[in-house]
Amino acid sequence: MQIAEPIFWLVPVSSVLALFFAWLFFRGMMRASEGTERMKEIAEYVRRGAMSYLRQQYKIVLIAFVVLAIFFTILAYGFHVQNEWVPFAFLTGGAFSALAGYIGMRTATYASARTANAARNSLNQGLKVAFRSGAVMGLVVVGLGLLDISIWYVVLNHFMEGATASDKLIAITTTMLTFGMGASTQALFARVGGGIYTKAADVGADLVGKVEAGIPEDDPRNPATIADNVGDNVGDVAGMGADLYESYCGSILATAALGASAFAANETMQFKAVIAPMIIAAVGIILSIIGIFTVRTKENATMRQLLGSLNFGINLSAILIVVATFVILYALGLEGWLNISCSVVVGLLVGIVIGKSTEYYTSHSYKPTQRVSESAQMGHATVIISGTGLGMISTAIPVIAVVVGITFSYLFASGFNFSNFGMGLYGIGIAAVGMLSTLGITLATDAYGPIADNAGGNAEMSGLEPEVRKRTDSLDALGNTTAATGKGFAIGSAALTALALLASYIEEIKIGMIRLIENGSSITTLREGLSVDLEAVKNATIPTFMDWFAVNLMNYKVLVGVFIGAMLAFLFTGLTMNAVGRAAQKMVEEVRRQFHEIKGILEGKGTPDYVRCVQISTGAAQREMVFPSALAILVPIITGIVFGVAGVMGLLIGGLGAGFVLAVFMANAGGAWDNAKKYIEEGHFGGKGSDAHKASVTGDTVGDPFKDTSGPSLNILIKLMSMVSIVMAGLTVAFSVL
Amino acid sequence: MQIAEPIFWLVPVSSVLALFFAWLFFRGMMRASEGTERMKEIAEYVRRGAMSYLRQQYKIVLIAFVVLAIFFTILAYGFHVQNEWVPFAFLTGGAFSALAGYIGMRTATYASARTANAARNSLNQGLKVAFRSGAVMGLVVVGLGLLDISIWYVVLNHFMEGATASDKLIAITTTMLTFGMGASTQALFARVGGGIYTKAADVGADLVGKVEAGIPEDDPRNPATIADNVGDNVGDVAGMGADLYESYCGSILATAALGASAFAANETMQFKAVIAPMIIAAVGIILSIIGIFTVRTKENATMRQLLGSLNFGINLSAILIVVATFVILYALGLEGWLNISCSVVVGLLVGIVIGKSTEYYTSHSYKPTQRVSESAQMGHATVIISGTGLGMISTAIPVIAVVVGITFSYLFASGFNFSNFGMGLYGIGIAAVGMLSTLGITLATDAYGPIADNAGGNAEMSGLEPEVRKRTDSLDALGNTTAATGKGFAIGSAALTALALLASYIEEIKIGMIRLIENGSSITTLREGLSVDLEAVKNATIPTFMDWFAVNLMNYKVLVGVFIGAMLAFLFTGLTMNAVGRAAQKMVEEVRRQFHEIKGILEGKGTPDYVRCVQISTGAAQREMVFPSALAILVPIITGIVFGVAGVMGLLIGGLGAGFVLAVFMANAGGAWDNAKKYIEEGHFGGKGSDAHKASVTGDTVGDPFKDTSGPSLNILIKLMSMVSIVMAGLTVAFSVL
Repeated sequence: MQIAEPIFWLVPVSSVLALFFAWLFFRGMMRASEGTERMKEIAEYVRRGAMSYLRQQYKIVLIAFVVLAIFFTILAYGFHVQNEWVPFAFLTGGAFSALAGYIGMRTATYASARTANAARNSLNQGLKVAFRSGAVMGLVVVGLGLLDISIWYVVLNHFMEGATASDKLIAITTTMLTFGMGASTQALFARVGGGIYTKAADVGADLVGKVEAGIPEDDPRNPATIADNVGDNVGDVAGMGADLYESYCGSILATAALGASAFAANETMQFKAVIAPMIIAAVGIILSIIGIFTVRTKENATMRQLLGSLNFGINLSAILIVVATFVILYALGLEGWLNISCSVVVGLLVGIVIGKSTEYYTSHSYKPTQRVSESAQMGHATVIISGTGLGMISTAIPVIAVVVGITFSYLFASGFNFSNFGMGLYGIGIAAVGMLSTLGITLATDAYGPIADNAGGNAEMSGLEPEVRKRTDSLDALGNTTAATGKGFAIGSAALTALALLASYIEEIKIGMIRLIENGSSITTLREGLSVDLEAVKNATIPTFMDWFAVNLMNYKVLVGVFIGAMLAFLFTGLTMNAVGRAAQKMVEEVRRQFHEIKGILEGKGTPDYVRCVQISTGAAQREMVFPSALAILVPIITGIVFGVAGVMGLLIGGLGAGFVLAVFMANAGGAWDNAKKYIEEGHFGGKGSDAHKASVTGDTVGDPFKDTSGPSLNILIKLMSMVSIVMAGLTVAFSVL
Repeated sequence: MQIAEPIFWLVPVSSVLALFFAWLFFRGMMRASEGTERMKEIAEYVRRGAMSYLRQQYKIVLIAFVVLAIFFTILAYGFHVQNEWVPFAFLTGGAFSALAGYIGMRTATYASARTANAARNSLNQGLKVAFRSGAVMGLVVVGLGLLDISIWYVVLNHFMEGATASDKLIAITTTMLTFGMGASTQALFARVGGGIYTKAADVGADLVGKVEAGIPEDDPRNPATIADNVGDNVGDVAGMGADLYESYCGSILATAALGASAFAANETMQFKAVIAPMIIAAVGIILSIIGIFTVRTKENATMRQLLGSLNFGINLSAILIVVATFVILYALGLEGWLNISCSVVVGLLVGIVIGKSTEYYTSHSYKPTQRVSESAQMGHATVIISGTGLGMISTAIPVIAVVVGITFSYLFASGFNFSNFGMGLYGIGIAAVGMLSTLGITLATDAYGPIADNAGGNAEMSGLEPEVRKRTDSLDALGNTTAATGKGFAIGSAALTALALLASYIEEIKIGMIRLIENGSSITTLREGLSVDLEAVKNATIPTFMDWFAVNLMNYKVLVGVFIGAMLAFLFTGLTMNAVGRAAQKMVEEVRRQFHEIKGILEGKGTPDYVRCVQISTGAAQREMVFPSALAILVPIITGIVFGVAGVMGLLIGGLGAGFVLAVFMANAGGAWDNAKKYIEEGHFGGKGSDAHKASVTGDTVGDPFKDTSGPSLNILIKLMSMVSIVMAGLTVAFSVL
């Protein structure tokens, strides 16, 4: 009945539109030539390596999914502490995310040689091929995400029942929210595994190639160079895509659930509040496509002009979505549309501030990174100290942005009435949706980076003319800048999404309690002193739940949870750091072995065994990703079993607070070290080959796992903890030790 | 009337006893000879440098104290939002802490040459001089701390009034709690300033001396070597002392306030609960003195035997305090004495587990640090990556220890009744007191370290015979081990103290509300929807306060507070890291200048300008400590003004969670790098002078500010935030923007 509202159909339509344009861009790219035989050969190596990695990874992911699906089935059908739809939804969420990763990465590996080849004609053509190939990833992620949401919405609307239309909508949205678990789990493996792979290869290649043998980056004589290029695809394309797929779906679903709860008193408004985030996302897709078409540059463009052309597309989409939001919510007739639109704008602004702050702290056009370069003159240790200091100081602005964003998105949506918890939290959710609404184009600029990087690698290894290499270098340099801001955006959106998920956690607790009572359990057994009936649960407000479970800061369980959450962020990061260290060591040994055993390899006469290096990275990444990933899933479950709802909420906020700050620190320190090295290579403080340069290479190498493995993995951790808790809410309500 | 209970007088008596034995040990040490003229000369340089630093530091501290005292006076007498005793108590807290630092450091600077000279006779005599001089610091800290508490208790008991005896005791304890602010502020400057000083000198001396000029540590030809030795005294003696003085007083005062509230219904029990932590501390002093007297070793003792003799004293005191606690609380007739005694034991156990875990992760007798050494073979970058990984992973055990400690100290004291908030929180407080009860001897082993270190420096610079140097090296190596465990202990006690302070925060809020209502303000104006009268406030339980101020995890102000707290820990750390970097750079330039300009300096013919280096470190530390210190005081105040009680509590728990984990990470990573270098110097992986050794020196240099500046400063931050919030509670209640 509700679904009959025609505007809802804009959601599936625009998701199909996104997939259509993705296909169009893909076809256009495939029609371009891959260039010379040598270029094809190199591209084929990288493609095969990337695909073989993805196959391996998906095998392990499949095992994890089967185990978890069985576990969820037992909880749902055996103990009735979980929704019956969860196991299926979990699987589709994972499958769609995996498919998006597959398509995006396949596209990227086809695009690199074609970008290099197009760059032989002109810079503009190179940019167009690379960027439109990146757009395939962007559009596939938002298209598949919104498609998954649409399908489940229609299916559940058909099958689910409720005492009232309002109850039904609450049931649908809280059920849909649990779908995110599939996307989260797949993202976890993609980020952790991909992150370990890419940096094991990169660090390994650099340590022996650049430092010991003194050959340049991407030199075909280095056996690890193909693995390094593969790594860009599996880490920066597939990993980043899965990460943002999760944020995108998670923020929309959490906001829908918060909307269903906040507007429960008015059926019509409730439906509007539920579809509002989906409609904003749908319109965002259309605006992203428009933005993508505007990205072009003239020949001989400077770095600033290249960046300007990308920014023009992104800014255009962002400005249009602001206008569109006010129009959509007004036309939808959503109560408080003006205020809620302001919350959306707040979300967009937070994204922009975090992006700009990342640029300031990591670009060598600004003082902070230049000071890191300067400190390299004193040696290896001082470059590490100053980069660490910079990274830690750089957490201030993003946190202030998030704090101001939370405050104003809450206050706007609640009509500046603090006690209006429901509306305020809906405001925080929709701010996250606003930030991610133009993901189609922002992710395109992210995925563009590794494609340009690989194009440069291909040009180098194929020995193309210097002019072409100069063009691919321009494209690559642009990619480094967009990668840094993209990382800031990924972290910022992860934080807002995690907040939205945290806010909707109580909705799941409510549903879990209702299910338990309906199945004949008495809530009295849950926690000493808590005796409630069905009516009480249904009518309970958010502060009532807080009181029932004593989710306050004088409850030792909350304090304990906060400590565990903060610790988990560090432990998880330490484990991934060490994983990169161990994997890189294996790579170093292999490269040294090949330099030693394969004759004429350094003179360019012997052929390095690229495949062996790819296998080493693949194997190491698969082995190393299991323990940290298992920890990320198990700790929230165990905390819930031992410390109950209060402990879980403490864990989530502790993990989110510490994890977000730690992620920003690691991303910015890593980015600054990278660019501090480039600044020296541009001729400052002694330039290439100087002692300062050597020290800056140390900084860059340390920064690699900071910014590309551990930092990004934390994005997933903070969202996944919330997702696991949401899915496990029923179990936590039904049973906890303390 | 209450004070008439004779057992209370044990508290001032044992504090005087502590001071008496401190004087005895000091006199004994002063009677020993300082050795040769050269030894006296070196010692005089260090002593003068240290004292001139302390004078400078206390000048700035005095300015800060005057400003804050005026501010508190205005709040107390102008706006009546603060207790009238605060300004005075604040000043005495600071003065006693400063006095303890002065005496301890003066003792240490007199003791170093005497230790070296005693080591010329025998190892046992060297140990005795160094350890008993360290004991001066330990006993002065606990003696002055408990004396300050006793005096104020007697004074307030005389002057304060209350409607009932119970009200009076609550008023006294909550007033006394604010005294900690003085100790906190003085500790902040001592730790931050001392930390910057010591590492600027150390890093500067190492970078030019060891790395560039290739001369050994403590070589008299290095102009920064005196500054380096001064640094050990101002950082590790005065800084550590002020840190633990704060923890010691803070934990006793917070527990007294929690006891007054938890036992408010029964006057007799209430008094017993208030003096129980003081009595435990008083008995702890006597047991510490006994423990100190047992520390001795035989000649030619191995490292293990030396450590054994120190541990014997510490363990003896710890075991005796466990027994004594049961006896004291039983004899006192405190309700629930058995359970509360168990909470005390829990606190002691947490301290031991954290100490052992620190040893495991930072000693090169164990795998983790050995693996860091191993990774040094691959270069500078991998040693940083593996140390960072180790440090982050090493946070797990301490956090689990704290989590288990919180849980059981709460559950024991509350009689396993979760809803008994008051008693449970009293349990957490008294666990902190238990951990710190034998501080007299544990701090003695801490202060022993830098004395032995300086003795080694003195022996080296005075050119004493190799045999003596071997003995001082043994003493120094022992000092490194005790320093690492001491750091773990300092962090662990800071965390438990901060928790106790956090738990007692609501007591201050309660008192603040009562004061406000009594002064005619209406609480209705405070926060929309909150309308309470005096009776309601007096009868309110902890969950009621949580409800009134919505201190729950769905309140956006709490979430915002957590983010700010976590960020503040990182920002503060980043600022201190950069401060060390900048100060070290100045030192490097000065040492290079002297090597260049002073003729024959490297041949040992020219005399280096030691004083100039001391001045540089002093000036840099003074300049650099101001901004981070101001931030640590201002952020909690501003958060309170903007986000109110809920925001402040979020800030405290966010800062505590992230700050504690970050502090453990920094201390352990730094300790591991230090010992990884030593492990290589013992001949592993190529030994001294190898590339692996060079890489390990980089790790050690990075680790210096980690473990000796930023990490320890975080101890203060997490306690100070609570202290500031406690003192500002009245203002926060009376006024907040949102």
